[in-house]
Amino acid sequence: MKVLVIGGDGYCGWATALYLSNRGYDVGILDSLVRRHWDLELGVETLTPISSIHQRIQKWQKLTGKQIDLFVGDINNYDFLQKSLREFQPEAVVHFGEQRSAPFSMIDREHAVLTQTNNVIGNLNLLYALRDDFPDCHLVKLGTMGEYGTPNIDIEEGYITIEHNGRTDTLPYPKQPGSFYHLSKVHDSHNIQFACKVWGLRATDLNQGVVYGVLTEETGMDEMLINRLDYDAIYGTALNRFCIQAAIGHPLTVYGKGGQTRTFLDIRDTIRCVELAISTPAKSGEFRVFNQFTEMFSINDLALKVKQAGIALGLDVEINTIDNPRVEAEEHYFNAKNTNLLNLGLQPHFLSDSLLDSLLNFAIKYQHRIDRAHILPKVNWKRL
Amino acid sequence: MKVLVIGGDGYCGWATALYLSNRGYDVGILDSLVRRHWDLELGVETLTPISSIHQRIQKWQKLTGKQIDLFVGDINNYDFLQKSLREFQPEAVVHFGEQRSAPFSMIDREHAVLTQTNNVIGNLNLLYALRDDFPDCHLVKLGTMGEYGTPNIDIEEGYITIEHNGRTDTLPYPKQPGSFYHLSKVHDSHNIQFACKVWGLRATDLNQGVVYGVLTEETGMDEMLINRLDYDAIYGTALNRFCIQAAIGHPLTVYGKGGQTRTFLDIRDTIRCVELAISTPAKSGEFRVFNQFTEMFSINDLALKVKQAGIALGLDVEINTIDNPRVEAEEHYFNAKNTNLLNLGLQPHFLSDSLLDSLLNFAIKYQHRIDRAHILPKVNWKRL
Repeated sequence: MKVLVIGGDGYCGWATALYLSNRGYDVGILDSLVRRHWDLELGVETLTPISSIHQRIQKWQKLTGKQIDLFVGDINNYDFLQKSLREFQPEAVVHFGEQRSAPFSMIDREHAVLTQTNNVIGNLNLLYALRDDFPDCHLVKLGTMGEYGTPNIDIEEGYITIEHNGRTDTLPYPKQPGSFYHLSKVHDSHNIQFACKVWGLRATDLNQGVVYGVLTEETGMDEMLINRLDYDAIYGTALNRFCIQAAIGHPLTVYGKGGQTRTFLDIRDTIRCVELAISTPAKSGEFRVFNQFTEMFSINDLALKVKQAGIALGLDVEINTIDNPRVEAEEHYFNAKNTNLLNLGLQPHFLSDSLLDSLLNFAIKYQHRIDRAHILPKVNWKRL
Repeated sequence: MKVLVIGGDGYCGWATALYLSNRGYDVGILDSLVRRHWDLELGVETLTPISSIHQRIQKWQKLTGKQIDLFVGDINNYDFLQKSLREFQPEAVVHFGEQRSAPFSMIDREHAVLTQTNNVIGNLNLLYALRDDFPDCHLVKLGTMGEYGTPNIDIEEGYITIEHNGRTDTLPYPKQPGSFYHLSKVHDSHNIQFACKVWGLRATDLNQGVVYGVLTEETGMDEMLINRLDYDAIYGTALNRFCIQAAIGHPLTVYGKGGQTRTFLDIRDTIRCVELAISTPAKSGEFRVFNQFTEMFSINDLALKVKQAGIALGLDVEINTIDNPRVEAEEHYFNAKNTNLLNLGLQPHFLSDSLLDSLLNFAIKYQHRIDRAHILPKVNWKRL
């Protein structure tokens, strides 16, 4: 099966592209490489030294004999997108190609506009390109569990059945996104659902939790295939960031009370979930939503786990509570469903001591690459 | 009170600006005039011959002594928006300044992208401009009842209390918009709600039904103050369009089974609702939603009413069912709440024979301006 991975040079995209290629899929990567440009603009760098996408793909072919087609360009450029799709002829498109950082989207107006334009219009272009040339192609779109916010009721997978004044309907689950980035994903979801309804497209929205870990079977094959690992306050996500802080003796930075509960998954489950979605496509006209995570933790839980694992490795780990730069509930009910992917056969890698060890050892290995100036958050949600 | 009407050269905006000016508000109009440009592009024209915005405002001042400040430019140009707001110093902003036609947004990819970019980013710019310079200014934003779609349960005003697995929360009402235009309004609503939450802005989202009628006390004062009245398949809305069809002996065009039920209001109620919202502003941090309509009718109901009123005036009125160019339920449950504005004191102008007479007579008076080539729908929702 021919699978195009949009955003295939990124953290989740690269791991996914190699995994699918290894599993026998005929993989293409389409990427604008703008994420590397944003790193340059912000003056931040992945902890791990990543090779260029061209080198990566060459090395992969040398090691495995498997070819990955490369399309360098922006899906906001419709001509480029259309031409690339026509050349590659995808049967499934996995769309990771969006600006994915909440703090980035909250830097200022320009970054909010960039995030929403880039994500919403890029995705809209993709919907039109599929409609016109590949109406049967399965769109697997990365969403985020952050679309739901933290409602005081259980979070279902995309839809909820509501009884109201004696009548019943199953409706899109109400969304309460917490940043202009998360809002862009909510906008996307609405646009995709509509395109499935009116054009008969088939789509799966993967509302993914926070991804942690860096090693997969494929990215671990060679130093030149290494995946990116972000630790800075813009792109570094919880857990990955905590491990890196622990490795260099920086206090773990818990924002506010730390009772914020979020969903998490190992990057090895991300790539497996994408494959599960691809291999059992949505029906024509169907907008399918999977909550893609394996466990729920509070930020305090996470910090404690990293502290314990760090101490076991002989590190001196402190936990610091800092002012929360975000506007979010710091103590709240949270219970999200994730049965769809489990029913398709997902066998989770739960967060374990060995994963934390591996991540901490990665961080220790590359600690010389860390710039401490980028660890503390500088972007504030509030009007200051 | 200083009120800036964005989109004040349009159908609802112009009537609102004059009404508020007449009631003693200090009014400014900000408009890019792009709607007049789209008319040119599409080759369509308002039934009524409208003067330029400059002439309109001059005439208004001559007649009433009241000045309306004019800012010609696009809110997607942030520098222009910021400069205009700083010059005018609004205490309330009424935001009508969006591409408002569902068929326009469905013409092709370019029009879908134009609609979502124009509406979402323009509105996002406005949120930032208010945050930075006028955080206490009340934003009155025009939404649409079409954001809700046609759920099988009662439609509440913006929020719904859901009981689920023994727990309860009040959440944003789930949205099922039916075009890329309606989707843009859903995106806006989410963005505004977030801005109220994180920045403490105050906003009222007016989810308006289909507006009909053309005469208001103010626009009727002089031929040069006349309001636009669209009859074409892109910008003409039900009822207005039916009256104009009846006036020229064109069959009324009912799309599909005609059981589509929608909400409606007289343009004299639109302007009154906006004033009610302005005069009792939302609280700081509050995102308030009002459903702005007075009655519900099916399309068949409307066509019959226009037929009866036409026959009474001696017109020969036929009703034709044509293939529905939209993808929508043609028979469905529909019951929407509209108590918030009634509680604030709205006294509705219900649809009456005299209103239909007045509208039909308007259409007869200007029938020489009608181009029959623009009456039948040419834009189709489906993938053809």
